[in-house]
Amino acid sequence: MSVALPKNNPYFKKSGKDVWSLINETAAAAEKESGEKIVNLGQGFFSYSPPDFAIKAAKDALDIAACNQYSHARGRPRLLKALSDTYSPFYGRKLDTSEIQVSTGANEGILSIFTAFLTHGLDEEVIVFEPFFDQYISNIELSGGKVVYVPLHPPSDFNKRTVKGSEWEINWNELENAITSKTKMIVLNTPHNPVGKVFTRDELNKIGNLAVKHNFLIVSDEVYENLYYTDHVRIATLSPEIGARTLTVGSAGKSFAATGWRVGWIIGNPELISYVALAHTRICFSTPSPLQEAVASALEQSLTNGYYEKTRQEYIHKYEIFNKVWDDLGLPYTIAEGGYFLLVNFGKVKVPQDYKYPAEIASRAKDFKLAYWLIKEFGVVAIPPTEFYIPEHEKVAEDCLRFAVCKDDELLEAAVEKLKGLKKYI
Amino acid sequence: MSVALPKNNPYFKKSGKDVWSLINETAAAAEKESGEKIVNLGQGFFSYSPPDFAIKAAKDALDIAACNQYSHARGRPRLLKALSDTYSPFYGRKLDTSEIQVSTGANEGILSIFTAFLTHGLDEEVIVFEPFFDQYISNIELSGGKVVYVPLHPPSDFNKRTVKGSEWEINWNELENAITSKTKMIVLNTPHNPVGKVFTRDELNKIGNLAVKHNFLIVSDEVYENLYYTDHVRIATLSPEIGARTLTVGSAGKSFAATGWRVGWIIGNPELISYVALAHTRICFSTPSPLQEAVASALEQSLTNGYYEKTRQEYIHKYEIFNKVWDDLGLPYTIAEGGYFLLVNFGKVKVPQDYKYPAEIASRAKDFKLAYWLIKEFGVVAIPPTEFYIPEHEKVAEDCLRFAVCKDDELLEAAVEKLKGLKKYI
Repeated sequence: MSVALPKNNPYFKKSGKDVWSLINETAAAAEKESGEKIVNLGQGFFSYSPPDFAIKAAKDALDIAACNQYSHARGRPRLLKALSDTYSPFYGRKLDTSEIQVSTGANEGILSIFTAFLTHGLDEEVIVFEPFFDQYISNIELSGGKVVYVPLHPPSDFNKRTVKGSEWEINWNELENAITSKTKMIVLNTPHNPVGKVFTRDELNKIGNLAVKHNFLIVSDEVYENLYYTDHVRIATLSPEIGARTLTVGSAGKSFAATGWRVGWIIGNPELISYVALAHTRICFSTPSPLQEAVASALEQSLTNGYYEKTRQEYIHKYEIFNKVWDDLGLPYTIAEGGYFLLVNFGKVKVPQDYKYPAEIASRAKDFKLAYWLIKEFGVVAIPPTEFYIPEHEKVAEDCLRFAVCKDDELLEAAVEKLKGLKKYI
Repeated sequence: MSVALPKNNPYFKKSGKDVWSLINETAAAAEKESGEKIVNLGQGFFSYSPPDFAIKAAKDALDIAACNQYSHARGRPRLLKALSDTYSPFYGRKLDTSEIQVSTGANEGILSIFTAFLTHGLDEEVIVFEPFFDQYISNIELSGGKVVYVPLHPPSDFNKRTVKGSEWEINWNELENAITSKTKMIVLNTPHNPVGKVFTRDELNKIGNLAVKHNFLIVSDEVYENLYYTDHVRIATLSPEIGARTLTVGSAGKSFAATGWRVGWIIGNPELISYVALAHTRICFSTPSPLQEAVASALEQSLTNGYYEKTRQEYIHKYEIFNKVWDDLGLPYTIAEGGYFLLVNFGKVKVPQDYKYPAEIASRAKDFKLAYWLIKEFGVVAIPPTEFYIPEHEKVAEDCLRFAVCKDDELLEAAVEKLKGLKKYI
């Protein structure tokens, strides 16, 4: 066919398969070939269901006619109220519903922010810390922005010892040098995927003050806000000046183990939110109604039923199960201060030099080969984190693999059993 | 706050409230003021629930862990298969799942198409028939495209007699003159909102052949495909050449009275779909899983349970109820050949000249005043269709109002009772 296909769109630049397809297809093929069950700790979806009270709320919503029809583009009134009730204590004041926009997953919420505030042709810049959640990049470029990368630096001896998330540090000179007159926004992710770092109050104050000084917006992706194992500070609450320019992103998918529900939200000052609302209305019009209503109910119940604390304790236990195998093997990792990922350093692992990789793996960074080998030889799926770096900076993470622990304890234990076999390659 | 707000984005051009907010707020205020129930035939949401078999399927899906987590960005396998089974008979061959992309509502599906095939800075043109579904415009502009408007012409005596949808005609010279070397796509909507026109085989052949001749894509928005009261022809099936450049859009929201579920789909040749898939992945990542699974089941069951035909008969009955009041009043309308809207010509209605309107209504076209007056004096909500025209062409529709009949029969009968009072103004 002779129809002119797109050439210049930014998300068509990357050739070859994305990491998710590549890894999932490798896993499916390996499972078929070996006949053995592969343990998938790759993508960050939960291996279990949302809590019963959330499922019941969704079923109840389906019984109400209006809950099956369009919701207001801003979000269902009940959900906006439940979000206000949930977040007001953190802000130390009653949040107005005009400060909240419901989105079709945090991803679409973040795209709505970029769409609202970036303009094609103006060469506006967005600062993103590296490693980054991969969708940020294409969403910024799709909106006409230019990404400026600022690395988080692990300790230089991360290949020798287990480190804390907080030891991944910002070089403040690098950050200040990245700011120009075209800087429109900075994107934070705390707790951080894939590092597991939770940004400290001091770091957030410094970032916030830079944003005030240089007049740019802060997008704070806090989708893992309920899974923190140290103090979690919300940058929007640090000062009125910082709060006025911060858009904070939350996710029912992450908070209620319902990544397939696609309900997220943005909190920020009403003027900023009014622009996000316009963009969201054009992108998705409105967010699925029965699932919005279910999330409203789940948030209401979680104000008093201890769900968040119980979940946090469960995740501390999951990390205990999973960290132990790396301690025993003597492989360093970054202790997660939040979220549900673990970044493990495989620098000490000696993969046989003559191991054969398919072309689409052989052409990628070392961690892609590690991930392939781990799937084929050990039946455990992890994600190569160089996917979250630009090619020039892949070296930082090429020895690492990212594991997701948002899985049933039994699955984690099965993975541990398989991973013990790494011993003979160290 | 001194944060620089966006200025150049296309969806910020229009000042003032959008039609939905304006009309819904007027209705809410009128209901409060009068203490009487307003009958809302404005927005095209259903006043009733999806069929029981679809609701049950959604509840069943919620009980499956994997149905609450991310689906593949292309769509759940079961839904892709159900769509193939549903559409293959229309195409006279087995549709491969690579020809189908699931979207988060038809709206996001259409945005994904524009995002995939339009490039900022290239001044590519998209032909849109007027009146248009309002989201097309902002979604094209958001993607960097330029809209070229081609009017559908009603008969010149539409103010005197009830006409058929098919009498709204394309002037073929106008359409050919609208085509330039920058024409990238044409957007069709059949059955058409708000006219109720179903494009004929002859019209579709002409449009399709122009697309082949001038090498542009066809976006055929067929979300009302199951509500037709004349022959509904699918442009993608007219010839292999036309089919190869056509992307057809469908909607579970429209087909299963579930506008709040946000599940839609695009069908087209695998190469085109692969680009749509990339765009969709960036925009929404994936579509809500339990609702995808529910739609899969609903489609499967509807292959044999007679649901579509039953619904069509119910809608023929709804139009019988609702058309009668206009026949009795002697007000002309366009007989809907498909969809669930009715466009009524109020040219003969004499609204009191000294009637007072709030500023935000007074500044708009005549139909906004008509809609306001109808809400306040008769308690019936309709949509002013000049919202679906560019300002230069508002004259065509300024005497009309659009009513949605996707409501319970009782509601329609209540509206009829209220509307009888128009008699004394004719």
